[in-house]
Amino acid sequence: MKIYFAGSIRGGRADAALYLEIIEFLKTFGEVLTEHIGDPNLTSAGKDGITDRFIHDRDLEWLLSADVLIAEVTTTSMGVGYEIGRAVADGKKVLCLFRPETEKIPSAMISGCADLRFVNYETVAELKNIITRFLAENFDL
Amino acid sequence: MKIYFAGSIRGGRADAALYLEIIEFLKTFGEVLTEHIGDPNLTSAGKDGITDRFIHDRDLEWLLSADVLIAEVTTTSMGVGYEIGRAVADGKKVLCLFRPETEKIPSAMISGCADLRFVNYETVAELKNIITRFLAENFDL
Repeated sequence: MKIYFAGSIRGGRADAALYLEIIEFLKTFGEVLTEHIGDPNLTSAGKDGITDRFIHDRDLEWLLSADVLIAEVTTTSMGVGYEIGRAVADGKKVLCLFRPETEKIPSAMISGCADLRFVNYETVAELKNIITRFLAENFDL
Repeated sequence: MKIYFAGSIRGGRADAALYLEIIEFLKTFGEVLTEHIGDPNLTSAGKDGITDRFIHDRDLEWLLSADVLIAEVTTTSMGVGYEIGRAVADGKKVLCLFRPETEKIPSAMISGCADLRFVNYETVAELKNIITRFLAENFDL
């Protein structure tokens, strides 16, 4: 299984350690195409010498080749929103995970979209259970 | 011409007055489907008694019926990112406007997308010129 994991880069790296933990967990199910999202050295500057055009085209190709998009959507991110829009339009399975511990309210365009699964979670253990159940429902594990 | 204007709601309302000014300007070209984005009474809580499902489905229907998407992308917003993704996937004309006055860097998924026009601006006068030229290039005004 090819998994596209989406998390905030330029929107803010507050959850970078969490993304890394999710990615390590996802690797037990298949290939994670976007391992760099969890890289602690990747800052919100988000540049590593490549152009935005290269980043977009590479990430979109990964996204469209993936079997599933799993997005951590607590940190607001334009890029993650864009990826969810492209994945839903392409008919992909999409799971969005939101931690309602802050005052933030998730976007209605994400939480109100019937073509994806939107789930609140509080702990990492809960998050792992949600991912496992979602993948088991949608794929032969 | 049907124009879908996108700006941040739950991502933050710092630019709400600017959105209103853009919408008033866009109304000189055609029908703006999303006039509520500029409403000063609309807060980042973003609720007005309707469900997220209703908001998503209404806005998506407007978006897919529009001739053009014009998005102000300075304030990071998951919903605006999603709308840009859906519009690009649908082959719509998309103009994204970014004010690089802050330390923020626009998402590479937006600024690096070849299927939309991404433009930096500094003043409202400049922004109006960019919109006018974009619409003139793409539509019979």
